[in-house]
This record gives sequence, structure tokens and C-alpha cells, in this order.
Amino acid sequence: MDAGQRLAIELACGKLPLLFAKYADEGDAAALAQLFTPDCEFSRPFQPEYPFHGRAAVERIFRDRPPILVRHIVTNVLVDAITETRAQGTSYLTMLSSHASTQPPQEAGALYVGGFEDEYVLDQSEPGGVWRFARRAGMVALHMGGAMPDIPPPTDEARGLA
Amino acid sequence: MDAGQRLAIELACGKLPLLFAKYADEGDAAALAQLFTPDCEFSRPFQPEYPFHGRAAVERIFRDRPPILVRHIVTNVLVDAITETRAQGTSYLTMLSSHASTQPPQEAGALYVGGFEDEYVLDQSEPGGVWRFARRAGMVALHMGGAMPDIPPPTDEARGLA
Amino acid sequence: MDAGQRLAIELACGKLPLLFAKYADEGDAAALAQLFTPDCEFSRPFQPEYPFHGRAAVERIFRDRPPILVRHIVTNVLVDAITETRAQGTSYLTMLSSHASTQPPQEAGALYVGGFEDEYVLDQSEPGGVWRFARRAGMVALHMGGAMPDIPPPTDEARGLA
Repeated sequence: MDAGQRLAIELACGKLPLLFAKYADEGDAAALAQLFTPDCEFSRPFQPEYPFHGRAAVERIFRDRPPILVRHIVTNVLVDAITETRAQGTSYLTMLSSHASTQPPQEAGALYVGGFEDEYVLDQSEPGGVWRFARRAGMVALHMGGAMPDIPPPTDEARGLA
Repeated sequence: MDAGQRLAIELACGKLPLLFAKYADEGDAAALAQLFTPDCEFSRPFQPEYPFHGRAAVERIFRDRPPILVRHIVTNVLVDAITETRAQGTSYLTMLSSHASTQPPQEAGALYVGGFEDEYVLDQSEPGGVWRFARRAGMVALHMGGAMPDIPPPTDEARGLA
Repeated sequence: MDAGQRLAIELACGKLPLLFAKYADEGDAAALAQLFTPDCEFSRPFQPEYPFHGRAAVERIFRDRPPILVRHIVTNVLVDAITETRAQGTSYLTMLSSHASTQPPQEAGALYVGGFEDEYVLDQSEPGGVWRFARRAGMVALHMGGAMPDIPPPTDEARGLA
């Protein structure tokens, strides 16, 4: 790879965490799911020990949850091109939300700071190829203003395992 | 447009939300106003229902307000080039401030998380052209640590309408 | 400089504040120190009045401190290429940490918002050259949820002055 190819890969992949946040916050589960490969693995920041498998399972997470007012603030995006079709990266995520109403502005209950480790692949099933998440592993490092949420473990079926 | 042109537009426009924050936080109303076209429209995040019209009205907002210690944290910047002279974008804004003193460090009263929807144009009144905000529409989605501020509605004159 | 050279410098230097955050949060003092020139100057955001001198002094700060769980959230990165071997920039830093445990997730005691003014140089002691911090001057503008920490002044020896 020359410097131009490397730059193009870094810019293309570096947009994916921002688009993930945009679609999550807009509640566009279908668009969000298209950022992932069909056989992706995705671990949610609040439950990193229960990875989800496959694009359909990822879409269901965001499609089936109750509507919330949420902002995924994405920073510290770093991408390393490994080959012309593979890259990896890290980013930080700061998350605030309200379950009281989806009508802004609302008071957020807490602030959560964590991040993702990402593996990107050039999905060549489309003409020209499209960079997608092959793997997204989230975690929460710090929280402020409120405790960690107590979320029941997802079923194997929800996780795309059954 | 080829990929190089598109990239150049995205990078040029993507700097504008960062420069807006820089000039707002430095209190440089004149430089901030130059980021907008002469006939721009600007909606403040705290009062999206009262858009301001024209660069002079934008400059007055920042020139005439009492000095505050403020930080506009800009993230999630996404830009789409539409044509060689028009683009649109979104970004998130996290805002903290203190009215007690402009001498850092100070305690912030609250944290506000919102964002902007932007329309960019290549202003060709200068040689080579300069990308500027044609329209900036702000909003606040979530707040933490304090209530939304109670700001009196701006006059029509302040808003460039009279 | 043409537009391509300028862009390459801005992208190369703009990564350094993100790598600084990554290595600081991972506790990799050696990698962090390599982001600085051998004769650098570095002022910590909490103690801007006590600059540290030289790469070895910077490395000792991060190597010798007790392990903490910390996130340096970096935003608003702006870089100006001055020449082919010099650049300057600014960025914002939002910092949260816990001294209770390094095992995530932990509750953060406070949120600090500040930033850095950076001077970058192309260090030509390596083939092709490597962009490094020649000077990093930090500050804290605002804090929320907790007071500023009371840190004893560093010794002249620690600061690379003795």
C-alpha cells in the first residue's frame, strides 16, 4: 500500500464509528446494520461479555428496544490499515440518554465513557467494495452521575446463537 | 466529482464546526462571523425556534454578550459533498461554561449535549473560493448537572429581521 | 507547500494528540514519550506553571505515577502547517478518572475540560522523518462534579531542570 491508499482506507473506516452513532441516535436500525458484515460480531459496551453474532442480530438490538433520547459522542478515532482489505481501529464513546421522553431537551441520568475496538473489512459483495465492521467490541471504562445500568443478559436467540 | 474533490470538500467543510468552536471560545466574534455567508441563517442550540439572519446578526450575538468562560466540544463531524459548491453536514456539540469568571479553571454549572445541522457553500466572492456556513441549525438534546437556561427571546432587530 | 503536502502534515500531526491519549490511557509511558522530541517542553493541564523539559522527564511522569483508570477524550483538533518541517495546533481534552481501581467500569470523581497548544516538528533523525511534539502546553478551563486536584509542585529534578 502507498500513502494514498492507506489514507483512503483510514478515512473510509474512520467514518464508520461516526455513522454508527448517527444511526443509533436517529433510531435507524436498518442503516446501522448495513455498517456491519453479514457475519459480524458485536459486543455492546454495557454487556461486553455477551457478543451478538450476525447483522440480523445487531439490527434487532436497535429495532426492538424502546425509543430513547440518546447521544453517542464519538472521539479518539484511530484506524490502522493492515492490508488493502483489512483494517483495525479504536475509538472512544461518551454516552448520555434519557428514558423519560424522546422529545429534546431532556435531563440525562448519567454519563458513560468507554470505547470500541473495531476490525474493518472491505466487503467486496458490492461493486467497488464497501468498508464494514467485521467486529466491534465495546466496553465502559468510567461513569459519572449514575450507576451502571442493570440489564438482563440477552438470550442466545437474541445473540444470533440459537 | 471524483474522490479527491469530494475528500477536499469534506475536509474543508469539516473544519468549520471546529473553527466556530474555537472563535466562540476565544470570544473572536469577527472571525466567527467570517465563517458564515453574508446572507446566512443561524439557529442557536438553546433557542432553535429563533433563527438569526445574516452575518452581521451572527457577529452581534457573540460580540455583545457578557464575557464567559466556555468550551464548545465538537465531535461526530460528518460532511457530504453534494456538488462542487454545496455540501451538508452534521456534528455534535457538548457545551460547558461558567459565568462566575473568565479566569480558568472554573466550575461548570451544567453540561449540554446537542448538535448542528449545517449547509455549506463555496463562497466565490473571494479568489479560489472559501467554504462557509450558509445555514447552521442548532439544538440541545440532553443536559446534565443543571437545567436548561431561561433566555429571553431575541428581538426581531437582533435577529436581523427588522 | 501545495495543498497535498499541507494536508499530509495536518493529518500526521493531528494524530499525535490522539496517540498521546491512547498511550496515556493504556499506561504505555515509553510509547507516549516517543511522541515527543528529545528536547521537548511539556506542561501538564493540571499544573501548567511547571513545564517539564526533555523526553525522559515526560516519560517519568507517566511511568512513575500510580496506575489509574483514566480516559483522555480528545476533540477539536486543529493543525496549521507552517513550513514543511514545522506546524502548530490546538485541541481540547476532556478527562475523567478513578483512583479506586483500574478495573473498569468505575465511577469517575469529576470531569475536567481543557486543552493543549502544540508545536510540532518533523524529527529528521529517522529515515523519512517523524512528526513529534516539540512543545505541548496544557490547561484546564472548566471542571464539573469535583474540585481541581491538589497536586504538590514537581521537583526541579522531576522537571528535567536539575
